[in-house]
Amino acid sequence: MSPIEVPADSPFGLDNLPYGVFSTPGAPARVGVRLADTVVDLTALPLGDDAAEAFGQPTLNAFLARGPRRWADIRARLRDLLAAGDIPPGATHPVADVTMHLPVQVGDFADFYASEHHAANVGRIFRPDSPPLPPNWKHLPVAYHGRAGTVVVSGTDIVRPRGQRRPRGERAPGHGPTLRLDFEAELAFVVGAGSPLGEPVGVDEFDARVFGAVLLNDWSARDLQDWESRPLGPFQGKSFATSVSAWVVPMAALRAARVPLPPQDPPPLPYLRGRAPDWRPWGLDVDLAVTWNGEVVARPNARDLYWSPDQLLAQLTANGAATRPGDLFASGTLSGPDRHQRACLLELTWNGTEPVTVNGERRLFLEDGDELAISATAVGEAGGRVGFGTVAGRVRPARP
Amino acid sequence: MSPIEVPADSPFGLDNLPYGVFSTPGAPARVGVRLADTVVDLTALPLGDDAAEAFGQPTLNAFLARGPRRWADIRARLRDLLAAGDIPPGATHPVADVTMHLPVQVGDFADFYASEHHAANVGRIFRPDSPPLPPNWKHLPVAYHGRAGTVVVSGTDIVRPRGQRRPRGERAPGHGPTLRLDFEAELAFVVGAGSPLGEPVGVDEFDARVFGAVLLNDWSARDLQDWESRPLGPFQGKSFATSVSAWVVPMAALRAARVPLPPQDPPPLPYLRGRAPDWRPWGLDVDLAVTWNGEVVARPNARDLYWSPDQLLAQLTANGAATRPGDLFASGTLSGPDRHQRACLLELTWNGTEPVTVNGERRLFLEDGDELAISATAVGEAGGRVGFGTVAGRVRPARP
Repeated sequence: MSPIEVPADSPFGLDNLPYGVFSTPGAPARVGVRLADTVVDLTALPLGDDAAEAFGQPTLNAFLARGPRRWADIRARLRDLLAAGDIPPGATHPVADVTMHLPVQVGDFADFYASEHHAANVGRIFRPDSPPLPPNWKHLPVAYHGRAGTVVVSGTDIVRPRGQRRPRGERAPGHGPTLRLDFEAELAFVVGAGSPLGEPVGVDEFDARVFGAVLLNDWSARDLQDWESRPLGPFQGKSFATSVSAWVVPMAALRAARVPLPPQDPPPLPYLRGRAPDWRPWGLDVDLAVTWNGEVVARPNARDLYWSPDQLLAQLTANGAATRPGDLFASGTLSGPDRHQRACLLELTWNGTEPVTVNGERRLFLEDGDELAISATAVGEAGGRVGFGTVAGRVRPARP
Repeated sequence: MSPIEVPADSPFGLDNLPYGVFSTPGAPARVGVRLADTVVDLTALPLGDDAAEAFGQPTLNAFLARGPRRWADIRARLRDLLAAGDIPPGATHPVADVTMHLPVQVGDFADFYASEHHAANVGRIFRPDSPPLPPNWKHLPVAYHGRAGTVVVSGTDIVRPRGQRRPRGERAPGHGPTLRLDFEAELAFVVGAGSPLGEPVGVDEFDARVFGAVLLNDWSARDLQDWESRPLGPFQGKSFATSVSAWVVPMAALRAARVPLPPQDPPPLPYLRGRAPDWRPWGLDVDLAVTWNGEVVARPNARDLYWSPDQLLAQLTANGAATRPGDLFASGTLSGPDRHQRACLLELTWNGTEPVTVNGERRLFLEDGDELAISATAVGEAGGRVGFGTVAGRVRPARP
């Protein structure tokens, strides 16, 4: 057999090898890895009975539960097999010929608010007479729980949600399709091995617990969210759909993308720090492009987060909350310092007051028929790039 | 065989028949119903292959997914079998001899804020200079998503959570065990047959979608919650543990408990109303007793809710959010109009300023070693009572 051809500049080379769940006509959904533009069926590779059972499932959860040693073993074995071209006939499919499915069964979905640029912009928009950040913001990563059952895979249409909203200056709310449909470009982390109730996961345990990362679009109905959020936070304004990219990039493929973050001021409390004296908060150099009907409208980068991914997991579990394989925790909107790095329309249009030009049209929020896609690559080894692929969705009209 | 003896005043008579998941030494967890003080093993009853498969699972989810016709069939058949005493030897166990497990695998957990008395008391405590209710409160049932993975069954110890809190008057927060551990007495509804993404579940579909109800204690760390909640709502202050009672009371057993609620003012928008002209919001006459170290400290009743359970489900899904078998949605704290009906310590002690006397001691919040139990019965047929049993938990010290 000949090896799969991998162009030198492919973001899906041997140093990436993201996992996904795919199906082909007439066959059930199963686990594959992506190499260049080829999906390799992991149930067809000689990886052992234990792996065959895990990879024959329609989600990654069974594999995730095996833990970090097994992830490393399988990754090493896969690199050897794929480098040698040692792939049985029938085990490969062009990526264009398969259907991709939601890669994990999501247990709980927590969404953080970890970009200072995003949180400060939101503060300036909604509380112009107060300091931009709430008093807790620099002391702990703020978050809310979203709806796990409405996480969908890239490519799923987004039906415009209906809900209550109160137009400015009116006393009573109305009910109807949202008038302010937005996206939020985020990075989300996939919990691998879970952790039991009552046992906080320290900053230093991130690598043992977190399997990989995906792109996430936290679709938001701003008018619903504004009206409902007091005092318990967002609910219907978010829970109609959350899209994730189909390929889970292993954290092992993102080593070269780790970059130190500036020192945090005030210094975080001990439970939000690693034990080693030289521990520092870190970000990921992941360069995102937000494309609205084919035109790039924002270029955020995950290295501009204030809080480090290991601090997010430490915060999530500091009270003893359990985690399970397939849990997601996301960064929140990844806005950077520059205007073209704002990662949602609330910021890009300054709450609907400053139009964005898309294909020559002046636009404020998402309209029916619009397609919104977020793609990204990370810094890889030896000057290469590690691809996340895309999380995309088309807006469909509200149901009658 | 002789029938199971059921005392005339048992809240677990033939008109109740709640479902739970139990195990006996050396045998796996499986589904049973409770009659008086006996657990009947449903895998041992002649209910058909399809039922045997569902009842052999360690959760109710497979049975829930079968839908309302099957629930009604099985309930009718069980009543006949149990009334006739037609029970194979070995199919019964004294309730004191079995271990009870979490009855459902929880998909998503949403918690509402449906008692006007509770919401208004919270407003008076935290915003004394503003109207007690937020402007949205009488227009829609407000809610947040909790953490599904930390829902535990009654009897599970509650480890005092650690977290960030900022003592009054101080500038910087500290980190440590919560100083204000509270309970919240609630009723929660168990989704049976789910509903697909994009399809709101109308008020009239409640009976087809909701299988039953449990008692729920939404344990709360008030100091953590206060500090973290702006602007995204409660997170760590709630996600360390949520306890539910072990027996799921079928909605079919709660027919006699339905009581009309007073008309809602302003009238709810059409999506929060039934289609029939005589539709009215309804409550459930479920009388709860909150017991703190053996002493009853509150007697709320679920008939004092402002929002009707069918309106909660309609709100939850109005934006097209999917539901899955085993999803929980809860009422929020069930406080009534009278002082002794306040259903959490935040209200009972007016935010820690008015002690409650428990066994002769003046107490404000829960201390290590305390046991908190919530039990309830509903109005049943012909003057009888329908029991929910108890949701109980003992507070353990924070881990070192």
